Amino acid sequence: MSAPRPAPLTGALLPPGSTLGILGGGQLGRMIALAAANLGYRSHIYGPDADPPAGQVAAAATIAAYDDEAALAAFAAAVDAVTYEFENVPAATVEFLAARKPVRPGAKALAVAQDRVAEKTFANGRGAATAPFRAVDSRADLDAAVAALGLPAVLKTRRLGYDGKGQAMIRTAADLDAAFAAMKGQPAILEGFVDFTAEISVVAARGVAGDVAVFDPVENRHRHHILDVTIAPAPALPAATALRAQTIAHDFLIALDYVGVLAIEFFVTADGALLVNEMAPRVHNSGHWTIEGAETSQFEQAARAALGLPLGCPLRRGRAVMLNLIGDDAHAHGRLLLAEGAHLHLYGKAEARPGRKMGHVTRVLTDDAVPAEAAIAALRAAVTPSAR
Amino acid sequence: MSAPRPAPLTGALLPPGSTLGILGGGQLGRMIALAAANLGYRSHIYGPDADPPAGQVAAAATIAAYDDEAALAAFAAAVDAVTYEFENVPAATVEFLAARKPVRPGAKALAVAQDRVAEKTFANGRGAATAPFRAVDSRADLDAAVAALGLPAVLKTRRLGYDGKGQAMIRTAADLDAAFAAMKGQPAILEGFVDFTAEISVVAARGVAGDVAVFDPVENRHRHHILDVTIAPAPALPAATALRAQTIAHDFLIALDYVGVLAIEFFVTADGALLVNEMAPRVHNSGHWTIEGAETSQFEQAARAALGLPLGCPLRRGRAVMLNLIGDDAHAHGRLLLAEGAHLHLYGKAEARPGRKMGHVTRVLTDDAVPAEAAIAALRAAVTPSAR
Repeated sequence: MSAPRPAPLTGALLPPGSTLGILGGGQLGRMIALAAANLGYRSHIYGPDADPPAGQVAAAATIAAYDDEAALAAFAAAVDAVTYEFENVPAATVEFLAARKPVRPGAKALAVAQDRVAEKTFANGRGAATAPFRAVDSRADLDAAVAALGLPAVLKTRRLGYDGKGQAMIRTAADLDAAFAAMKGQPAILEGFVDFTAEISVVAARGVAGDVAVFDPVENRHRHHILDVTIAPAPALPAATALRAQTIAHDFLIALDYVGVLAIEFFVTADGALLVNEMAPRVHNSGHWTIEGAETSQFEQAARAALGLPLGCPLRRGRAVMLNLIGDDAHAHGRLLLAEGAHLHLYGKAEARPGRKMGHVTRVLTDDAVPAEAAIAALRAAVTPSAR
Repeated sequence: MSAPRPAPLTGALLPPGSTLGILGGGQLGRMIALAAANLGYRSHIYGPDADPPAGQVAAAATIAAYDDEAALAAFAAAVDAVTYEFENVPAATVEFLAARKPVRPGAKALAVAQDRVAEKTFANGRGAATAPFRAVDSRADLDAAVAALGLPAVLKTRRLGYDGKGQAMIRTAADLDAAFAAMKGQPAILEGFVDFTAEISVVAARGVAGDVAVFDPVENRHRHHILDVTIAPAPALPAATALRAQTIAHDFLIALDYVGVLAIEFFVTADGALLVNEMAPRVHNSGHWTIEGAETSQFEQAARAALGLPLGCPLRRGRAVMLNLIGDDAHAHGRLLLAEGAHLHLYGKAEARPGRKMGHVTRVLTDDAVPAEAAIAALRAAVTPSAR
């Protein structure tokens, strides 16, 4: 109409109206799809489960197994780029899709994050400390590992663990047989016990052009091995430790030639050491606060990265607290809609099973008048009035 | 698991997982569906157009005419409550649906807002001033109306007008024939010309329990009869005028026994008078800034009201500017993704036709360092670099 338009900034940038393929149809895929929609993009969900929560907000959904090559080929043909909401996507699935369309993050990051031994070896190779560990493939390996690391220690499957699943605490030699049996013959890892004072995490992103955006470190508190509360920024974390955690995230993104969102969980020990605990090559529960609490959410960063767009600004809009709604907690939605400052998110899951992540609620604090602990207590009181 | 849960706050509250029916599948319906999804609800879009933008983010879409009773009956059976994204829904459609499921806002508000004479008569009846007006059903009516109101004046169809469509300016008697012919025999209204200094609007909401939430008045600037820029709050608006505009919105909500989001456009005249120009019984382009700029967006308020939930807090998070992206403007998305503070929204429309609303971009200003005009200029420069 008026002046001619300049060319797009980069050939990699997928134009609005393009379709983002998302492997996995749970709440993380759902929130990525919502963020992509805000930017004018369609989403296409792929996964084996009927009526995926993410399918309710996506332009298309394919219900098929991860090894169904006909379905995968049709999915690849229908989308313009692929990302995933969970790190246990079979490597063969990613390989099949990556031959057809960009898959972001790529296979290299996925391979590292899928295996606890590879993950810790990678971290140590980058100069980042972890708990001491040994690979355990046999009962003899376990005995040798215990001799090397001492007790207590934690035995974990190398793959497919989450929310405390596939883990066994070993306090004394009497626990060894049961712990080894609990691995059900899968390759395992023994991790030396870490006496930490806080668990923190950093969520960071890297775009196709190499741009990096790192959110502030947050503190995470768990209940029954499931994330309960996130506080942003992590309170009482020394500035040098916060910067060190962000620097590690930045370095990992570069080292893995990463495109997408990466979450790194750390232990902070009593003497101030920072130990990498786990990495997730995806958006992360500890980043949910960014929807209201940051200029750009982790979900928008994931969509931008996968679609070849530049990343957005990761700065905080204030302090934030996030409370997970597990199982029956979601029944408090009526009160949470009225709770001061509360931003309620429910995930569209039909059945509130115990331990199931049904939603979360975030409050952003823009002045110092309300301590984070008081904000958490107020949200918790809305979830369970009898606990007051 | 622990203490027994108290009963829900109100029987009217539809539980998460319920389905919100939305008449109309454009960008407003799309943004209501996205807001409903954040709260854990499904959306079902209904409208005659293929591939509606809102359908890309809804659990279901019915493509059918507004007078297709079989399709409407199936739609009513599939949803738990109904709202709409545009005021020109046929009254018979709303009546048909309202006999089956709650329709919010209701038929009364829709009837008032669909007819410019009814709208102004209602406003005057509530003590709110409007431009002087006369109903015009014949050429003789027009002559009498011009004699009463003087020239210049504007002749408009009573129904179905938007973005300047169905309007004819009458500057001299020589314009009368053409203006009357432009109405094509439809019932019309002659409005006395108003020499205004600013156009402002108030977006407000009322819930099923009678709770009211009113956003701050904003200033709107148009180009070619289409909204170009919104500034929140309206700069240079005297506090008494702002309060008067909000009070009128509050009063209208009560008087109409309204449930949902109502937008009221006002003219502010040189002597500080406030004249009601138009009402829209729905979310409004001048409320798009609320997505990032307010604690609760107008879209979430619309979803909450329609679903029987309590309204959220309407307070601003700062000042905000919103720039509409019309036609080719949307091609600037690559630069807008990088523009400082810019939150880009594109609506999933395939074709960037001239005059078509393709998206919008909002920037929230949390301190006074950046004037609103500078923020608008920066966004405009990102849309059209050659205009710098």
